[in-house]
Amino acid sequence: MDISTNPIDAAAQALAELRRQRPLVHNITNYVVMDFSANALLAIGASPVMAHAAEEVREMVSLAGALVLNIGTLSRPWIDAMFAAGHAAMARGLPIVLDPVGAGATRLRTETALLLLEEVKPTIIRGNASEILSLAAAGGATRGVDSTRGVEEAREAAIAIAQASGALVVVTGPEDFITDGERRARLANGHPLMSRVTGTGCVCSALVGAFAAVQPDPWLASIGALAAYGLAGELAAVGAPGPGSFRTRLIDALDEITPERVRQDARLVVE
Amino acid sequence: MDISTNPIDAAAQALAELRRQRPLVHNITNYVVMDFSANALLAIGASPVMAHAAEEVREMVSLAGALVLNIGTLSRPWIDAMFAAGHAAMARGLPIVLDPVGAGATRLRTETALLLLEEVKPTIIRGNASEILSLAAAGGATRGVDSTRGVEEAREAAIAIAQASGALVVVTGPEDFITDGERRARLANGHPLMSRVTGTGCVCSALVGAFAAVQPDPWLASIGALAAYGLAGELAAVGAPGPGSFRTRLIDALDEITPERVRQDARLVVE
Amino acid sequence: MDISTNPIDAAAQALAELRRQRPLVHNITNYVVMDFSANALLAIGASPVMAHAAEEVREMVSLAGALVLNIGTLSRPWIDAMFAAGHAAMARGLPIVLDPVGAGATRLRTETALLLLEEVKPTIIRGNASEILSLAAAGGATRGVDSTRGVEEAREAAIAIAQASGALVVVTGPEDFITDGERRARLANGHPLMSRVTGTGCVCSALVGAFAAVQPDPWLASIGALAAYGLAGELAAVGAPGPGSFRTRLIDALDEITPERVRQDARLVVE
Repeated sequence: MDISTNPIDAAAQALAELRRQRPLVHNITNYVVMDFSANALLAIGASPVMAHAAEEVREMVSLAGALVLNIGTLSRPWIDAMFAAGHAAMARGLPIVLDPVGAGATRLRTETALLLLEEVKPTIIRGNASEILSLAAAGGATRGVDSTRGVEEAREAAIAIAQASGALVVVTGPEDFITDGERRARLANGHPLMSRVTGTGCVCSALVGAFAAVQPDPWLASIGALAAYGLAGELAAVGAPGPGSFRTRLIDALDEITPERVRQDARLVVE
Repeated sequence: MDISTNPIDAAAQALAELRRQRPLVHNITNYVVMDFSANALLAIGASPVMAHAAEEVREMVSLAGALVLNIGTLSRPWIDAMFAAGHAAMARGLPIVLDPVGAGATRLRTETALLLLEEVKPTIIRGNASEILSLAAAGGATRGVDSTRGVEEAREAAIAIAQASGALVVVTGPEDFITDGERRARLANGHPLMSRVTGTGCVCSALVGAFAAVQPDPWLASIGALAAYGLAGELAAVGAPGPGSFRTRLIDALDEITPERVRQDARLVVE
Repeated sequence: MDISTNPIDAAAQALAELRRQRPLVHNITNYVVMDFSANALLAIGASPVMAHAAEEVREMVSLAGALVLNIGTLSRPWIDAMFAAGHAAMARGLPIVLDPVGAGATRLRTETALLLLEEVKPTIIRGNASEILSLAAAGGATRGVDSTRGVEEAREAAIAIAQASGALVVVTGPEDFITDGERRARLANGHPLMSRVTGTGCVCSALVGAFAAVQPDPWLASIGALAAYGLAGELAAVGAPGPGSFRTRLIDALDEITPERVRQDARLVVE
């Protein structure tokens, strides 16, 4: 185990590159977090678009630098749109991020996530421990959309999913775990207030998409997104009187966070 | 008429209990307020979930401590989901809160609310005066989703609905009115800025659901939610320069409000 | 070219009138901006309603003072609702505002916008330069929902659309351009932070709807809305540490902005 500085340099460079390129990130995401995700993407420097009509998702994908699929408020037309967009993204070699919100809570969510995993072969999967465990069929039912399991418990499940699917897997929590099945890293940035605001996990997935649009290695893209986001959370928490103010400041902090800050303060341990 | 302290003690205890249990509150609610409602539920200490697919609502109800049905942006699939979830909640004896947003403005809203009232037998109905009057067929058309009628005007309608349906009825406004058909109370907490922010009524219904998940008496659950919410509004208004800041602070205040504060400052009059 | 004070007086009066009448503004808009639009409408003094079910939009239109159609997250049922509501609004002589979000990015958006333009004859069209250019078939594909073209480039397109359709056309950007095909004006209020927050264009369209509900001349209504909104943006930017705080303050500023301030500080040039 050693503290590697290379991925952190790459993370800092990806943030700079993201701001230069302003990649279009196409989100098919849940109703609750659309506003928050779009503002977070704009603040970090990307260009968000939300589009879910089966009639237009293929065209929108053709303009995008990454596709983010989030199953937080599923229904049949949205599932259809996710597969249509996912196939179009695969055909273009576009990075796809899957956020299996609430997988394990209902069969519809678990099965949709597993089918997306199988059919559209996401580049990166980001979930909390409960969701990752349920995807690996290693865990029981999740409790709604909040995690009731620790990141430590989900390590083996994450590695197994990564090995079976070829996707990079990110488990977020007080300490994040990142694996491509072989490499493993932990990132210790962030703040407890992040778990007191709805959609902070979904926003993380959207930001992972933005970084993946400019950094072709999903390992480096994920580390970049998690480091920048965690550090923004730390910045936002300073003096925040509560979760409402914290959320507002988190958007400010995503705008304020610099590559230098990422280089200095990311707490990554490559195992 | 006397100032009863018992319901206020129960309200304070329910808030403490809510924070201990973190009940899952399943919302089938309108698009406008999903984000605000989810953050308000998290801030007060509950665990929010939004799910509306007919395929999953029964399973989600089986994990929940309360179900909140809000008709603010209706469409056929959402109506179907509300009935499916409502029947599942009835079968489990789960508290159901109905928020008849805009009842009276269109037939779709009035009729859906009345049919939900008849078929899924909500435990608690929370609306503004116009909505409650229109449900009672005692009033004319409402004006959009804002109330144009005073709470005083809706007292008899609320009592009639409670008696006919068995639901506890809450009419919110500058002074809230609560009745189970026999008992009647008024609560005078809150702040005028609450009417200057979209969805503060919907958030109130969601919080009533959270309290109902931990306090089986709908009378005490409603008083608890209204007192905590009104006091949070008062806290949030101190120094708020306008409705945008007020909304952010309201989330902070829901996190900050304590059982002690509820016990001290709730202005309840049991008639 | 001269600086006309008359439209600015009318703008200031329209703001005062809006606060007196509190017109109901019926929005069929995208999921991302519903919350922000509703709060902006409430803050400026209007009464927002969101309703999209084909079964109820005609009735809702009959209660409204203006209809705002925004194609930001289209799907078939929403398109149907827009036409149903649009026809009902035409029949009542109600002002209709069309926001062609992302026109040019996908055929679904471009064609829906053009068909709405043809069939429901919007009173006012508000878009960014890319959107207006794509509607005029004068420009190429837009890049998602952000404008990549300058307002200057879209002048001729705007004039052509206005002349062909009879609609007043507003192109917003660092400097806004307003034309009814003959008259032309530029408005230079606003702040760069407005382009760093999702949905500020959509909110502009909603505010144009609110002003059109109380000021029958679309030229004066648009100038009123743009001046009040731009000035609110300037107020909100003072001391705002980033786009999250700016958005919160923008709602505060819409509440705070006065007719006097509009009269004093609107920077309108009638060409």
